[in-house]
Amino acid sequence: MIVIGERINGMFKSIGDAIAAKDKKPIQDMALREIAAGADVLDINVGTRVPKAERAEVMRWMVEATREVTGRPLSIDSPNLEVVRAGLEVACKKGPAIINSTTAAQDRLDAFMALAKEFGSGIIGLAIDENGIANTVDAKLEIGMRTIAAAMENDVPVEEVYLDPILLPVKSDQTSPQVTLETIAQFKMLSDPPPHVVVGLSNVSQQATERSLLNRTFLVMAIAAGMDASIHDPLDEVLMNEMITAELLMNKSIYSDSYLRAYMQHG
Amino acid sequence: MIVIGERINGMFKSIGDAIAAKDKKPIQDMALREIAAGADVLDINVGTRVPKAERAEVMRWMVEATREVTGRPLSIDSPNLEVVRAGLEVACKKGPAIINSTTAAQDRLDAFMALAKEFGSGIIGLAIDENGIANTVDAKLEIGMRTIAAAMENDVPVEEVYLDPILLPVKSDQTSPQVTLETIAQFKMLSDPPPHVVVGLSNVSQQATERSLLNRTFLVMAIAAGMDASIHDPLDEVLMNEMITAELLMNKSIYSDSYLRAYMQHG
Repeated sequence: MIVIGERINGMFKSIGDAIAAKDKKPIQDMALREIAAGADVLDINVGTRVPKAERAEVMRWMVEATREVTGRPLSIDSPNLEVVRAGLEVACKKGPAIINSTTAAQDRLDAFMALAKEFGSGIIGLAIDENGIANTVDAKLEIGMRTIAAAMENDVPVEEVYLDPILLPVKSDQTSPQVTLETIAQFKMLSDPPPHVVVGLSNVSQQATERSLLNRTFLVMAIAAGMDASIHDPLDEVLMNEMITAELLMNKSIYSDSYLRAYMQHG
Repeated sequence: MIVIGERINGMFKSIGDAIAAKDKKPIQDMALREIAAGADVLDINVGTRVPKAERAEVMRWMVEATREVTGRPLSIDSPNLEVVRAGLEVACKKGPAIINSTTAAQDRLDAFMALAKEFGSGIIGLAIDENGIANTVDAKLEIGMRTIAAAMENDVPVEEVYLDPILLPVKSDQTSPQVTLETIAQFKMLSDPPPHVVVGLSNVSQQATERSLLNRTFLVMAIAAGMDASIHDPLDEVLMNEMITAELLMNKSIYSDSYLRAYMQHG
């Protein structure tokens, strides 16, 4: 499982405050905490408090701060091409990166795929196009196919593509979890080798009362459906333990009585 | 989800002691505790401390004790036809019952199906025949088909049949959970209306260290695969909460902020 840690995000108060104070320390501490908890990739998001005109500069600074403590892959999280480019320029000097994310609106898809090619980075492709979020399994698959085709045209290996079916909050759309599970299984059959499949896990519990319970229950179901990457909070220990257990039950790791500890030492 | 509570079993010390002392109270208390925790059906098992010759009599007594406090369905748990018959005779006077269980060895299958017909009870059919436990999805399906055919021949409605793929401990067979998940999905497509599909959940964690974690993680995966019944410990509250959440995410109940409490009030 590729765990993309979501905690370096200006929306969280401690990170937002660190950005405002130009204080690298809380960002670097969070990076190390996420890695210790099992994150494979660190998502970097400037948040919404930073004025738009300053976001590229802040992204560059956040990536620099993180790169001082880790060479792990960084997920450069912004819908804005220039913000993503600023992050990639710094991140890729000392390690791999993933673009988070592009929609399949044709002009965006072409521009972001070209950027992935330029930096040799991974790229997350959302099941969204000119018509908005695709709601059915078929519509999501069609967008997934277009995303893979665009990757191939731009010489981005399919192993670097992460398809995101777009998981909506169960509170506002109760059909979304099931549609997402079906799409995950189908995405994995779109090509050989298959693309990665990822979701923004905490979406499922937006506005709900039982957030951690909903997140971890959906994560286990998604792993059973074949999902191999997830953007979530690695500091949620119960969630991480269930993720590790789900992978064990899918025969992706070898049982030992200390399999939870073994996973962490492995990472 | 049909929860078959596993706690009225002579293998548990308090129940074993109650049987030895002919004290109904601990059995009745456990029945009420299981029901309050969300059990739909109560499994009754005399355990192995009782000499074979006395098991039918003890089953009769345990069912009588339980029937004094509840009219819920009882799962009469024994491989022995006479022990099952003794339980059914008492249980079915005041409510429904399920035979737990038969293999698909032809003579047993015929005899137990005839018993299910005679008492109008449900019946659990294991993926086991003359050759032992079926290990592959195909072999399990073949036994499932034979079980459904035997039900039809004996005028037992398929809605009363519970197919059990036989979940083995992950510690001794790491392929079993995945094979079981695939079988669950296939069992549900064997007939229209489909049979129920059930597992003995705690098998997955036999001899393992993280029993509750393994049990609940597999349960969530199995619900995603279409399983609609489970023999487990309803007193494991975390497991029950994840089960309820998995069903919500499969759109089988309606979201409210108090969906956990709503499920319990419903039962």
